[in-house]
Amino acid sequence: MKSLVLERKDELSLRDFPAIDREEEKLGPRDVRIKLHTVGICGSDVHYYTHGRIGHFVVNEPMILGHEASGTVIETGADVTTLKEGDRVCMEPGIPDPNSKATQLGMYNVDPAVRFWATPPIHGILRPTCVHPEAFTFKLPDNVSFAEAAMVEPLAVGVHAATKARVKPGDNAVVLGAGPIGLVTALSALAAGCARVYVTDLADKKLEIAQGLSPAITPVNVGSENLVEIVKRDTGGWGADIVFEATGSPHAAKTVFEPLAPGGCVVMIGGQPDPIQYDAGAAMVREARVENIFRYAHVFPRCVGMLSSGAIDVKPLITRTFGFEDSVSAFEIAASAPPADVKMQIELPQ
Amino acid sequence: MKSLVLERKDELSLRDFPAIDREEEKLGPRDVRIKLHTVGICGSDVHYYTHGRIGHFVVNEPMILGHEASGTVIETGADVTTLKEGDRVCMEPGIPDPNSKATQLGMYNVDPAVRFWATPPIHGILRPTCVHPEAFTFKLPDNVSFAEAAMVEPLAVGVHAATKARVKPGDNAVVLGAGPIGLVTALSALAAGCARVYVTDLADKKLEIAQGLSPAITPVNVGSENLVEIVKRDTGGWGADIVFEATGSPHAAKTVFEPLAPGGCVVMIGGQPDPIQYDAGAAMVREARVENIFRYAHVFPRCVGMLSSGAIDVKPLITRTFGFEDSVSAFEIAASAPPADVKMQIELPQ
Amino acid sequence: MKSLVLERKDELSLRDFPAIDREEEKLGPRDVRIKLHTVGICGSDVHYYTHGRIGHFVVNEPMILGHEASGTVIETGADVTTLKEGDRVCMEPGIPDPNSKATQLGMYNVDPAVRFWATPPIHGILRPTCVHPEAFTFKLPDNVSFAEAAMVEPLAVGVHAATKARVKPGDNAVVLGAGPIGLVTALSALAAGCARVYVTDLADKKLEIAQGLSPAITPVNVGSENLVEIVKRDTGGWGADIVFEATGSPHAAKTVFEPLAPGGCVVMIGGQPDPIQYDAGAAMVREARVENIFRYAHVFPRCVGMLSSGAIDVKPLITRTFGFEDSVSAFEIAASAPPADVKMQIELPQ
Amino acid sequence: MKSLVLERKDELSLRDFPAIDREEEKLGPRDVRIKLHTVGICGSDVHYYTHGRIGHFVVNEPMILGHEASGTVIETGADVTTLKEGDRVCMEPGIPDPNSKATQLGMYNVDPAVRFWATPPIHGILRPTCVHPEAFTFKLPDNVSFAEAAMVEPLAVGVHAATKARVKPGDNAVVLGAGPIGLVTALSALAAGCARVYVTDLADKKLEIAQGLSPAITPVNVGSENLVEIVKRDTGGWGADIVFEATGSPHAAKTVFEPLAPGGCVVMIGGQPDPIQYDAGAAMVREARVENIFRYAHVFPRCVGMLSSGAIDVKPLITRTFGFEDSVSAFEIAASAPPADVKMQIELPQ
Repeated sequence: MKSLVLERKDELSLRDFPAIDREEEKLGPRDVRIKLHTVGICGSDVHYYTHGRIGHFVVNEPMILGHEASGTVIETGADVTTLKEGDRVCMEPGIPDPNSKATQLGMYNVDPAVRFWATPPIHGILRPTCVHPEAFTFKLPDNVSFAEAAMVEPLAVGVHAATKARVKPGDNAVVLGAGPIGLVTALSALAAGCARVYVTDLADKKLEIAQGLSPAITPVNVGSENLVEIVKRDTGGWGADIVFEATGSPHAAKTVFEPLAPGGCVVMIGGQPDPIQYDAGAAMVREARVENIFRYAHVFPRCVGMLSSGAIDVKPLITRTFGFEDSVSAFEIAASAPPADVKMQIELPQ
Repeated sequence: MKSLVLERKDELSLRDFPAIDREEEKLGPRDVRIKLHTVGICGSDVHYYTHGRIGHFVVNEPMILGHEASGTVIETGADVTTLKEGDRVCMEPGIPDPNSKATQLGMYNVDPAVRFWATPPIHGILRPTCVHPEAFTFKLPDNVSFAEAAMVEPLAVGVHAATKARVKPGDNAVVLGAGPIGLVTALSALAAGCARVYVTDLADKKLEIAQGLSPAITPVNVGSENLVEIVKRDTGGWGADIVFEATGSPHAAKTVFEPLAPGGCVVMIGGQPDPIQYDAGAAMVREARVENIFRYAHVFPRCVGMLSSGAIDVKPLITRTFGFEDSVSAFEIAASAPPADVKMQIELPQ
Repeated sequence: MKSLVLERKDELSLRDFPAIDREEEKLGPRDVRIKLHTVGICGSDVHYYTHGRIGHFVVNEPMILGHEASGTVIETGADVTTLKEGDRVCMEPGIPDPNSKATQLGMYNVDPAVRFWATPPIHGILRPTCVHPEAFTFKLPDNVSFAEAAMVEPLAVGVHAATKARVKPGDNAVVLGAGPIGLVTALSALAAGCARVYVTDLADKKLEIAQGLSPAITPVNVGSENLVEIVKRDTGGWGADIVFEATGSPHAAKTVFEPLAPGGCVVMIGGQPDPIQYDAGAAMVREARVENIFRYAHVFPRCVGMLSSGAIDVKPLITRTFGFEDSVSAFEIAASAPPADVKMQIELPQ
Repeated sequence: MKSLVLERKDELSLRDFPAIDREEEKLGPRDVRIKLHTVGICGSDVHYYTHGRIGHFVVNEPMILGHEASGTVIETGADVTTLKEGDRVCMEPGIPDPNSKATQLGMYNVDPAVRFWATPPIHGILRPTCVHPEAFTFKLPDNVSFAEAAMVEPLAVGVHAATKARVKPGDNAVVLGAGPIGLVTALSALAAGCARVYVTDLADKKLEIAQGLSPAITPVNVGSENLVEIVKRDTGGWGADIVFEATGSPHAAKTVFEPLAPGGCVVMIGGQPDPIQYDAGAAMVREARVENIFRYAHVFPRCVGMLSSGAIDVKPLITRTFGFEDSVSAFEIAASAPPADVKMQIELPQ
């Protein structure tokens, strides 16, 4: 199978990769075999390419990249009941141990044994086909395209964050960071009931994209504008009900409580490799609740439903599409800073 | 002051009504005086007109009707800080005892001592001016009209119901009943994060209006269609995550659990004068949570924010507007069944 | 294997029952084989004996009774990691489909496919040994006896009810009904943070047992005392924060909202075979939350922990113990009304 | 009135203090006048004595100390309904602005305008009498002594923390710190449903006191024992469901996530004057919820109820009692490190 292989840090090749035709490709009774159609390029894919590691996950052997994917079911296991050949689907990339305590409690995303695509040593899906459990494969309605479906994975992060925040209708929220995750979080916060979402960044270009997503989004360039003053002015001095931290920057994390209202909620989304400074006094005086999230759980079918009903529109975020044969250069473009695009996707030959 | 007075059951007159120029009209230090602009006609106003009572609230003396209102501040008490003369506002019609235990706990709507406009013996506001506490008077942004602002009161019921339901993004909901409360509940459920809302009724005309509100609304005529089958078909047999009961019909209440998913929530909105049948077995086998709601609390500013940001559009629900001089005939039309309108409003002379 | 077999309605025999030595007795890789030690007699066991059915669960073929059990691990499957031969354990009697949506969401108790001991056509465990999944078998600390451990199953109902109620420290609660489930609910409510629990019944004998469990329990004989007056008097007119319905009586269910405080919670525990009357108006004016519960989920290890730490003491509820050879007469005694005992248990030969 | 006056940093005097016989001593219609009986010495009282300030609260003028108090009603305002002369009471020391948004939402403790006893410039109650709002004065049952009642204030911190943690019955918790707040938190956690509480400290003497409070408390000297290993061993590797941070030490705060289970909750109680290090990665991988608390709200009557019912026993924490005439030396003893006592109290002449 011709696959996009990260041979080692800084070296990608599009080549035959037979190794995985073994264990992962056996179709169990509750599995389906999927022909891949569209795969999005995630910041983590690019980070493995440019750094060879994320935290303690190190690329020691060639690994296929890609985990934001949609495709078509081409074979079904004997006990599969909800999917059939020809179904258009998207796939959740992490498979937990069904017998772990976390999974049994309904929190499979915090199961340490979860196997996640394109996280060493698990291969990703920039390849023609894959085998996946029925339980983590979700049928698409006719009005959701493959491209939109491949956006469900990043969108799921935003929807999970908004779910954990327990948004009340009419809340005002701040999203720190207008990168891809910031933008899906802003869309999710609005879909979850926020009346207004302030999106911050230092790059005007990103803020323009944010502003274009909804009239209920207010962009704030924190290089030149004072977020806290703006939020306080608009809310009669009360503050934002929710602050989503989607930058992963220690500096942003340090200031998350400043625009927050009494009794408000901070959701930490952006990964922080190192310990961060945390203004405990500012958190206490507001009785802030802080939710720390890790990927997502149970939200893929919800995302598909919201794309289908029109509650969320991710199409403006898909800014560039490459053919599979151009995937190495797609990664090169994605790795060159600063990216002018929100989300690049790769289409596999059908 | 010329006011719309319910003299007794079945008898309305538009006449001078000096009596209330006493206690209620004194401007306290934290009160504002408001010139009324627009007042919506609520089913409860009509019910007092046609029945002379609602439950144990009996119209024993002439009472001014009306409690869905917007207007302009014309005078402010000495300690008022958030409002000034000329501010356009809408008003929450119930004033609780600030010292009651329910109020202190933040649940002022269930304080038995609450004084509510047009609920005997408290007068309503179909009159030129009124005095109201600053704390229950909410400034309107420029882009929210007086007509929309007078819709905040019924909308608040829907938003409170959706808040109590704790909608998760992507939930599927059923709203039983396509009357005014059913429609604002459907809009609120969508704004609160539902991907799809099934609205039921027996009247096709009402269902057409419902369907017109959003492509995410699916109308179901329960006279000719099987709600449970439709919901189960669309959700892979799972059921609706939330069922809002907005009919006040004992028959509808009896069946609320049938379309409900395991772990789902039923919100009882429609008032039920008599004890209802309740299928406890169906509730238990799903571990249903039932939220029983009473008016609303803390949601007026949230509603104003959502009208302003575009999260909710109530304009399609305002189907007819009368001048104050025609208010008696407006009530006659409203009382004649079946009403072809969703919400009728009366504009006072400015 | 000599087993206690319900041959048909009204006919029990203690006899060899080879049939189940087939499918259920195969030890899978994640199963353990258990030598039974103590089995409690539940009201449902007795009801199958005296009526041959519960709702649509009908005893059409001979069925072994018993589902409240403790014992000793005598064999472990190849992949078992948390248990070993000789471990003293108690067992959760219901096994869900691990692939159902309800199970994945962490609500396995509402999975319709759950297989539950002594619920036709699934056999119970009044027999020498059984095979059970590791995931539903819980190791006992040394200071929890087999008799206490066989009480975990009924206790789990009360703990689950108290968990769903979301008891806040210092809540006042009412438990309607002083039968075994009412008593474990009262103990659970206290352990979960209630300051005071009012337990109601018509039988003084049962109320004496209730009172003996804790000085924080106030017995109320609703035949001669006015529960609502007592609760209101003690709470300054506010009412009880939580009402647990543990009678299964339609009359009790009808009045659950009367002693309830504004914003309070009603937990429906007692099974109701028929639709009940429900005072929707009383529920709404309080904005009552109603939780309908079905068995339990995730609470067995919590119960074991609370028995071990002393947070809950179930020993006073175990009022009589029979040898296995006397189990038919034990059931005859349990079926004779009115039972002078709370919980009867049967000890199997070791 | 003879009062205990902090003249300035390091200088206390027991002397006549007439100044406050003015504004604060006027009895409003909803106020009561109270003869003080017992007042506990809090760490914050001692800190004002030894440092002259806490954060930005600076003692610029002589201030009466004391805020943990019980007493007897000696006069009632015209509109007081729940209290009468002779009632034994305890008092909540913070009075919020009833018109603030935080207060209206039921979160009066985070109202910035709250006036709190013995927090400059508000005087405390180490004086013969005070005037206090009925709404923050709570009647004592006969079986709760004045000494226990003066413990309600510190206990309220623990009960509020346990409430915010949303303890589920059978949770395992860690309390970092065995000072007075750590101990009331441990008692509150147990009362709120925890099966087991691990209390940590570096001082064996404090840990002995902790252990003596309940067999369900496990003391851990983090100078010589490994907390994480102990908790993991006892919970099959899962971790503690809740970690209460009650030291106020930056080092402890840095490690709060280490013993925490997936999906667990950290409650930050101990004040942190400076920004702390926060292991965001450890928080995320567990999806930890962090609750930051500030004093308490709505828990005083709950504490009184739990003292009365026996759910919590604070008597072992009251280690020493002084007469009012010895209050200066009581503070000197309290200020001398290390304190051998948990809680010292001062009794006023009756």
